[in-house]
Amino acid sequence: MLNKFRNALYSVVNGAEGYPGERDVNDGNPGKLAPKFPYSRPNFLQLHSQDEVMVAGDHNIRPIIVPRDISKLPWNTGYAEAVNAGKSLKNEDQSAIYEGFLERNTRVSTSPAKEATDLTAESDLADSAGGYRLPYYYFAIFDGHAGSGAAVSAANQLHYILHEKLVDIIDHLMPENELETVPGKPVKMFIPAKDLGFQSLVVGALEAAFWEMDKLIEEDRFRYKITGGCTALVALFILGKLFVANAGDCRAVWCRETGAVDMSNDFTPETERRRIRKLAALKPELLGASFTALDYLRRPTKNDIGQRMLYREPYMTGWAYKTIAEDDLKVPVVFGDGKRSRVLATIGVTRGFGDHDLKAQLGGVPIKPFLTSQPEVRILDLEQESITELDVLVMGSDGLWDVTSSDIAAKVVLSSIQGFLPEDDSRYKYRLTSAAQDLVMNSRGKHTQKGWRTVEEKVATVDDISVFVIPLLPYKVEYEQWQKQICPEKLSIVETSHECSNTREMVNADTGDAEMKETKPADADGLER
Amino acid sequence: MLNKFRNALYSVVNGAEGYPGERDVNDGNPGKLAPKFPYSRPNFLQLHSQDEVMVAGDHNIRPIIVPRDISKLPWNTGYAEAVNAGKSLKNEDQSAIYEGFLERNTRVSTSPAKEATDLTAESDLADSAGGYRLPYYYFAIFDGHAGSGAAVSAANQLHYILHEKLVDIIDHLMPENELETVPGKPVKMFIPAKDLGFQSLVVGALEAAFWEMDKLIEEDRFRYKITGGCTALVALFILGKLFVANAGDCRAVWCRETGAVDMSNDFTPETERRRIRKLAALKPELLGASFTALDYLRRPTKNDIGQRMLYREPYMTGWAYKTIAEDDLKVPVVFGDGKRSRVLATIGVTRGFGDHDLKAQLGGVPIKPFLTSQPEVRILDLEQESITELDVLVMGSDGLWDVTSSDIAAKVVLSSIQGFLPEDDSRYKYRLTSAAQDLVMNSRGKHTQKGWRTVEEKVATVDDISVFVIPLLPYKVEYEQWQKQICPEKLSIVETSHECSNTREMVNADTGDAEMKETKPADADGLER
Repeated sequence: MLNKFRNALYSVVNGAEGYPGERDVNDGNPGKLAPKFPYSRPNFLQLHSQDEVMVAGDHNIRPIIVPRDISKLPWNTGYAEAVNAGKSLKNEDQSAIYEGFLERNTRVSTSPAKEATDLTAESDLADSAGGYRLPYYYFAIFDGHAGSGAAVSAANQLHYILHEKLVDIIDHLMPENELETVPGKPVKMFIPAKDLGFQSLVVGALEAAFWEMDKLIEEDRFRYKITGGCTALVALFILGKLFVANAGDCRAVWCRETGAVDMSNDFTPETERRRIRKLAALKPELLGASFTALDYLRRPTKNDIGQRMLYREPYMTGWAYKTIAEDDLKVPVVFGDGKRSRVLATIGVTRGFGDHDLKAQLGGVPIKPFLTSQPEVRILDLEQESITELDVLVMGSDGLWDVTSSDIAAKVVLSSIQGFLPEDDSRYKYRLTSAAQDLVMNSRGKHTQKGWRTVEEKVATVDDISVFVIPLLPYKVEYEQWQKQICPEKLSIVETSHECSNTREMVNADTGDAEMKETKPADADGLER
Repeated sequence: MLNKFRNALYSVVNGAEGYPGERDVNDGNPGKLAPKFPYSRPNFLQLHSQDEVMVAGDHNIRPIIVPRDISKLPWNTGYAEAVNAGKSLKNEDQSAIYEGFLERNTRVSTSPAKEATDLTAESDLADSAGGYRLPYYYFAIFDGHAGSGAAVSAANQLHYILHEKLVDIIDHLMPENELETVPGKPVKMFIPAKDLGFQSLVVGALEAAFWEMDKLIEEDRFRYKITGGCTALVALFILGKLFVANAGDCRAVWCRETGAVDMSNDFTPETERRRIRKLAALKPELLGASFTALDYLRRPTKNDIGQRMLYREPYMTGWAYKTIAEDDLKVPVVFGDGKRSRVLATIGVTRGFGDHDLKAQLGGVPIKPFLTSQPEVRILDLEQESITELDVLVMGSDGLWDVTSSDIAAKVVLSSIQGFLPEDDSRYKYRLTSAAQDLVMNSRGKHTQKGWRTVEEKVATVDDISVFVIPLLPYKVEYEQWQKQICPEKLSIVETSHECSNTREMVNADTGDAEMKETKPADADGLER
């Protein structure tokens, strides 16, 4: 997460985990509390020792690490990662895979799910007692900053929290018995036209889980050492649909033979400028004495006092003139442009978990009120889409996307996959791993005398990079089989909800925060939320 | 604005202008202050006496009123209106047309613009002194509620406020002299890639004008009698583009031969549920003791206490379960569905001007903090679009849209226009007036024994209806002529800004509040902002 923090390099050089601006709740007793989870790399990589973890974290070589045995990952999903070039001591990205299932024997009994790496050959869809098992698949990337604590916490716990939320809505996801109904039935509402599709409940489960994860970190930090914060990107395959929940600047892209379709939206200080300015205007007390909710064409200086300058009020999308006064010399609540934009001149991240004790370097006001754990959730209806072997979901931390655009990613993936022939069974299964490696390579580049450079000799990222390449066809096939087994005679009348009626469009569940989709802004700022 | 207020009929029956829940700042001295502007119908209707105004307001006949002499309207624009069926004493809709121009002789001198009805034959584009005149055209509809004061104020003043804002940015709209540059040049910014197009400044002018209009009503109410509030919809034709600014549930639709393209978004308690819930969550003190920022599947009752019910937190777009407690019996901040939804169980309007003294019927908390004057601005680049005689902009108050959808409106307009032959010069110019009449007729219907019914025997609106049908071709042609006259040799290099590069898409300037465009919600609520 390069450039996310001023002085990030400073703290690294000094070997400190944690950010100078972050107040340690254990002030005076540093290190008194132990971490809740030890630092590690994702368990599906199957690194066998701390030595291997060390080697993976070599900042000079930046090895591209892939799982030891890809058959432990669902559908031979591709994964690759590379550590940063020295901007932080450890790789602060974390990733997680979880294969869960919801189970229903008579009423609401559920079984615990199992880790991907614990998977045995057992894969029966209906269990022996005659009940139902609804499998689901969870993939996540957490991009940490100012320490690995929040990312490690999320990688170890978010899927359990989400599982509980899914169990909560099991009535709407699974039939109680064979005669009752079909999976994914709509929730009857007082006004029939407003019946909720089960999607609304899965979206609600994801949203509630994200907020609860943040709450847990907030509480845990009094009992454990949890440093920093992290962004979060989750892909959930359930009931024939793919839900992508994103809080931060990781990105998920549906790569097709025909090109790239973004399945998430990057939340950064730049893209969330308007949300943050409006919040600052509603609660000016959060700004302290040093910051302003107004936006200016450029930062006013003393020389500008008395002059006209283009500016905008927090509610404005366009620009107007005002005469600059002393008060206009305050720092804008979102300061800087593009990758260098920061909230309260301190943090380059606006969504995710953690950062509860982070203070602005200027004036010391708390930053957390400006951050949110709210994900934007988008839905892809795999049942309705025509999906081939070439359709994959690429999930990547911002280290990938800093260099590789969505469109380029789709091209890299296609080129990688098409290099493998289905006839060559022993090699074919590695095509997604190869694609993940190629993506990491494309952004990491090579170490040259000028530093890390891409194959086109451009500046490569020096940030951590983590990439999933998840095939979409196997889940679609698996779900269709599950559906046939659960309610073979009802397949023709499956009415998941009226929301599914025209699912060529992806559904953007975050009606609140991803405000500029499909339309162009009238101002030149680009995406402004 | 039917159903916008509980007891609206009550106040009408009693002949009172004003709403029982609205505190009169002149309490104890009702009627002491005079209105700033006398109640009237739009001046471009050219009604000659108060008698004519009275006849136009007959609630039983509901005559469809059109301008006496349509040549007084730009481009023979169509307009028609009909009063409500008795829900308020007067027609609370107001409309306005303004033909303005920005003038530049040497530096920033500007001339006052003139009312449409004062127009003489004078139509020279460059004035005699060798300077420039940039003509612009303004059309507006204000839909009042709980009195006509706010709507009348806006109809008389908003265009003057906007004119001032446009004068403010004249440097960016017009060349200072013939040699200098071309109209609509981009604003140079510190980062060249971020140069502002002039659109950002026009959007800013519209936004600032809307807020200032509301501020003016707020201040004026201590000096004049200004009752109620109003929504606002403005269309501004300037520099070859059409800007539509909307704050409320009036609607503008670009009707083409091929169908309808919405140029605005309806802001109602239903569509703004999320904005209002999030605001309530940020500032819970605004809710008083009676309201809650949470949303429930249905309103919980005492019997639900201890039971699970689907609900959502203010930040959620999906739904989750919670166990109902005593606190959940509070009234949701947006209560009711569809046309019956209300903010603080009181008002069915969320944007516009006025309502400064309105209190919730329950608990008496102020409602104004939940309302906003912020318009959403959309831009249509007429230079880039292929525009024919059949392209019109329909602007209507919600009385029109309650019955007539955008698509039906496009069909009605097309059918009306195509009934006129260009050869028949004496009749052809009335085609837009005819279309406006047909639109009003389609929503007003006829008085039957069952009340007002449409031609399909469905319930018609009993609300006020106001409709503009504005042709798009004449302005486009006029602008092209103006451009040739101002900078004939520079036409090929006109670079209005990088924002115009792909203008097939309409630009949605309100990146902040119209959040659900072009995507489908994951929840069943439909549009949720």
